[in-house]
Amino acid sequence: MTNGLAGRRRELITSLIRDVPDFPKPGVVFKDITPVLADPEGFRAVVSELISTAPADIDVVIGMEARGFILAAPVALALGAGFVPVRKPGKLPGATYSESFSLEYGHETLTVHTDAVRPGSRVLVIDDVLATGGTVGATAGLIRQLGAELVHVSVLLELAFLDPRRHLAEHGLTEGDVSSILTVG
Amino acid sequence: MTNGLAGRRRELITSLIRDVPDFPKPGVVFKDITPVLADPEGFRAVVSELISTAPADIDVVIGMEARGFILAAPVALALGAGFVPVRKPGKLPGATYSESFSLEYGHETLTVHTDAVRPGSRVLVIDDVLATGGTVGATAGLIRQLGAELVHVSVLLELAFLDPRRHLAEHGLTEGDVSSILTVG
Repeated sequence: MTNGLAGRRRELITSLIRDVPDFPKPGVVFKDITPVLADPEGFRAVVSELISTAPADIDVVIGMEARGFILAAPVALALGAGFVPVRKPGKLPGATYSESFSLEYGHETLTVHTDAVRPGSRVLVIDDVLATGGTVGATAGLIRQLGAELVHVSVLLELAFLDPRRHLAEHGLTEGDVSSILTVG
Repeated sequence: MTNGLAGRRRELITSLIRDVPDFPKPGVVFKDITPVLADPEGFRAVVSELISTAPADIDVVIGMEARGFILAAPVALALGAGFVPVRKPGKLPGATYSESFSLEYGHETLTVHTDAVRPGSRVLVIDDVLATGGTVGATAGLIRQLGAELVHVSVLLELAFLDPRRHLAEHGLTEGDVSSILTVG
């Protein structure tokens, strides 16, 4: 009962997530969050919940291309922090650090501007979906290269059946370092 | 003098935009807005200026992949509107409308979910840079397919030397329908 507001927000968000079968390939059920974003109350509920998990004194919020931008940018503004994009290769015009990671069907690389975050900054990472943890793990590597401190990861939806936290533990992220509004599986 | 706050915001934003020569190809000077976003005051100034240009009673804010998401999402939240992404082909999981347009080096296609915006909705389009107007023009076409009304376009930076407004006029967007915080050329 003490969790009434968060509970109602979660119910609303859950009701707006749409299952799309066989996307991006046969056998996969894609969790489509676009109906949440299109609903003013749903979108506000997601951002409010993400803000509520943020530790104190965050200097920078990092969002990952492309859907991560939609949630990370409003959280950065609300916290009075800077927003820094992590992008795919060839998108950022300045000098970059990069990190590669494995996907089930190949490799992916993420990049960040080398001067985007001051060393020692406290960084919050925001994304829409935490699946295998590969994207967040690579972002953790970029934050290490920047000499900054990844203090928390917060996502809208965690696909627990893909066991992302085991992968994130390899990057030094323990249970309390990672929050999700909703969990599947 | 009556424009003091907006003037100070524009000075701050201008000071934070970085010119990157020869990106994405030789001879092009790329306007890098990432230092604006990384600066909490700069980011807040941009979003405040975009909000200040919004007409009343906006139902939906559309942002275009990927940098457009960073500015459109906070504006949608501030206006109490829904956020709808316009994306490249293959990214949206549901049924989509699509619009193609020419670039100097080929063609580009943009898509939107067919059920993303209710017919008759009042739509605000937000993007970072208005260059040739091709992206905004294609988005205007998507909004027509949705049966919604594009009431305003607001961008951070307009590259006037590429004459985007001539192109946008072909989509029925007249001078007062398009705002830019800063103009180059």
